Amino acid sequence: MSYKEVELKDYEYILSVAENDKERVFFKDQINEDYSHDELGGIKKMPDIVVQATSAEEVSKVMKYAYENNIPVTPRGSGTGLVGAAVPLKGGIVIDLSRMNRILELDDENLTLTLEPGVLLMDIGKYVEEFDLFYPPDPGEKSATIGGNISTNAGGMRAVKYGVTRDYVRGLEVVLPNGEIVELGGKVVKNSSGYSLKDLMIGSEGTLGIVTKAVLKLLPLPKKALSLLVPFESLEKAIETVPKIIKSKSIPTAIEFMQREAILAAEEFLGKSFPDKSSDAYLLLTFDGNSTEEIEKAYENVAKICLESGALDVLISDTEERQESIWSARGCFLEAIKALTTEMDEVDVVVPRNKIGEFVTFTHELESKANVRIKSFGHAGDGNLHVYILRDELNEEEWKAKLSEVMQIMYDKAKELRGQVSGEHGIGFAKKGYLKQSLPDKCINIMQGIKLAFDPRNILNPGKVCE
Amino acid sequence: MSYKEVELKDYEYILSVAENDKERVFFKDQINEDYSHDELGGIKKMPDIVVQATSAEEVSKVMKYAYENNIPVTPRGSGTGLVGAAVPLKGGIVIDLSRMNRILELDDENLTLTLEPGVLLMDIGKYVEEFDLFYPPDPGEKSATIGGNISTNAGGMRAVKYGVTRDYVRGLEVVLPNGEIVELGGKVVKNSSGYSLKDLMIGSEGTLGIVTKAVLKLLPLPKKALSLLVPFESLEKAIETVPKIIKSKSIPTAIEFMQREAILAAEEFLGKSFPDKSSDAYLLLTFDGNSTEEIEKAYENVAKICLESGALDVLISDTEERQESIWSARGCFLEAIKALTTEMDEVDVVVPRNKIGEFVTFTHELESKANVRIKSFGHAGDGNLHVYILRDELNEEEWKAKLSEVMQIMYDKAKELRGQVSGEHGIGFAKKGYLKQSLPDKCINIMQGIKLAFDPRNILNPGKVCE
Repeated sequence: MSYKEVELKDYEYILSVAENDKERVFFKDQINEDYSHDELGGIKKMPDIVVQATSAEEVSKVMKYAYENNIPVTPRGSGTGLVGAAVPLKGGIVIDLSRMNRILELDDENLTLTLEPGVLLMDIGKYVEEFDLFYPPDPGEKSATIGGNISTNAGGMRAVKYGVTRDYVRGLEVVLPNGEIVELGGKVVKNSSGYSLKDLMIGSEGTLGIVTKAVLKLLPLPKKALSLLVPFESLEKAIETVPKIIKSKSIPTAIEFMQREAILAAEEFLGKSFPDKSSDAYLLLTFDGNSTEEIEKAYENVAKICLESGALDVLISDTEERQESIWSARGCFLEAIKALTTEMDEVDVVVPRNKIGEFVTFTHELESKANVRIKSFGHAGDGNLHVYILRDELNEEEWKAKLSEVMQIMYDKAKELRGQVSGEHGIGFAKKGYLKQSLPDKCINIMQGIKLAFDPRNILNPGKVCE
Repeated sequence: MSYKEVELKDYEYILSVAENDKERVFFKDQINEDYSHDELGGIKKMPDIVVQATSAEEVSKVMKYAYENNIPVTPRGSGTGLVGAAVPLKGGIVIDLSRMNRILELDDENLTLTLEPGVLLMDIGKYVEEFDLFYPPDPGEKSATIGGNISTNAGGMRAVKYGVTRDYVRGLEVVLPNGEIVELGGKVVKNSSGYSLKDLMIGSEGTLGIVTKAVLKLLPLPKKALSLLVPFESLEKAIETVPKIIKSKSIPTAIEFMQREAILAAEEFLGKSFPDKSSDAYLLLTFDGNSTEEIEKAYENVAKICLESGALDVLISDTEERQESIWSARGCFLEAIKALTTEMDEVDVVVPRNKIGEFVTFTHELESKANVRIKSFGHAGDGNLHVYILRDELNEEEWKAKLSEVMQIMYDKAKELRGQVSGEHGIGFAKKGYLKQSLPDKCINIMQGIKLAFDPRNILNPGKVCE
């Protein structure tokens, strides 16, 4: 499909929509290079126009204009994505939603929070905790926007106990590709009123509509929380313990795994020391609840299972300070690993949680076989791994070949284990080929049909997901 | 769209697919009249062929034949629906899935249950409890199949704390309209791999595909549970208390409301006596958890709120027997009310939970204004009402006019309160017009586009939901 060449008059129209504010509408050479890529940076393309929208009405007017004039539009939050979903592959307009960052309402009778898409994840937690409330989804990247989290159905650490972003989105206000503003869902707890367009929008990576408002479900804040850091002599031993924990029915809030290398990298990155780094591998577990009795029973049970499975120790962190030092290290692994190499790319597969040990072992063997550094950490408790392949000193050609070889092997393995291509980072542009391999053609065709139903002119975030 | 006239040779082919078993394939006059309607019976049409399928392969072959020969197909479970979704409006083939009722696997490392769609809701709970596990969704109609629950995204009583069916479906095996068998999702906890076809399938009332297998998420069984029966002098007073309970952050598992009339009807229906019927209105609350400390704290707090809001008493049921007597009454309200009149129809609106008081008051006023008996009960804690309009002695014409007048008024009110047409019973055929009124045209168009992407020949359950 060919699009209209963007001209000065298009910029002038978009500028007029944005109150002629030149601080938030940019044209061609005025555009910051950051808008051409996301966090990993491997996929690049500059947009022709960037508009930092401040309201759904502005988004709607821009979208309507683009629709009528056949100009591609790519929505963008904080740009913390890893698969190129926010890269304007076909140029055109980028709508930056990061200025739409107001928390609009905390409704304590319905236990909902209504907010704009540009609110940062880190600000949601802080805000609702003041009211003794809790927004459970907890992806590692706290500077992501909630709009971005919704677009990828991000899961994070607490998915083991609390589920993923989808489970906490009650309603969305969305600008459709033709510029129309619609509400999907609302404050209601149940809904069986036609096909769930809200659930389709969640995880659609900005290809079906642009989220301009969200109504999130909140829970009462658990009164107590506690973390366990459990060293093991090898990652395999650590991960083998996970299905035993799940089987015990003492379900932690989070079960993460990490290795010494990632911890050392994080220490260097943060300039802060980690409570223990004498062992090769660790499980990091959290428990939360409202009574000490309940939490103690759960963690004592789990500690026992870990020790029986070969844990070298069980370190309890019940002070906020100590928990913070552990979790801040966990939170910066991606950036710490990034700092170790010249460039990297990632695999975000999810497998059934009793298969994660097999997948990690496989990855380790692959590292030596393929002769490339592969670092992984991730969500042991929900089967979602974040595996990073490091470029180091490879030249462009070698890197591309190595990456494609190693990735293919990993996605094949995930498929064999009945896993999925992405647990929470999405497909974007980078993983399209792997999605296509992983699903029956008919499912891809149906997805394309859905895209067509929302966006018959294919102007919203073209070239992504199933296209 | 016109369909092929069903002939004997079509029956013969379907019979051959079903191992020539005449005990489970029926043609024209051999077909039991029950297949022409669902639980409410207001919408009727006989199919030409009924096949009681026993495997996904059979469903696939039937569907493929129907697709190639342009014969409409309607899937059916227990037939406990209330909106005509399982009625074969255009005749053709009914695929009855109730014989596909095997529980296939309980996976205690992934905490999942894999089963066929014809398993009854009541059998799931019983089965998993033996393993100290818990399937939280708890719709009133326990003889519904899990396939039916998935098709309407049923919610039930425990949605207040645990969410709805959607939240517990990890994966589905589905036969598409062209006969292809696909898997959507799986045992994985997280998934961000393209548009969520699984979530689209949930709540699509058998119009996009036929569920032939489901992977459900289980939780550890809470160790303790307790119910409170709280009498109030009026329903308004009872319901006004609900937002105060939610606000207190002591979230019960369930908050139901009921009136004396429904209780008396249930007593008569069951032939069993209810612990208290001296008051006009009741809230029925359950609490569950793993420690007595935790539950006691919560219910004492809630009991206090109820008494401060004018409750006449707080009756605690901590024996299984007493809980059973209360909940079995609650479970039979629909049938008990049905026994009170000649015919009835229902409204299953959902409103934000702090608006349920206003809606109930409105319904009460409407009852006297419109001069028709209206009985309601339902899920006070999640804003989902089940309102029944009773025909009594009205003749056909009066009944139709009255029903349409009263329903329109109620749906208008629900819309005004930012509610939705259906909380959990779905749209089927009966509520199509109200769905259309409640959503922007563009959303209906998108739903039609989605239907087209799955079912370009419109042969699967035609005439339902958005068509």
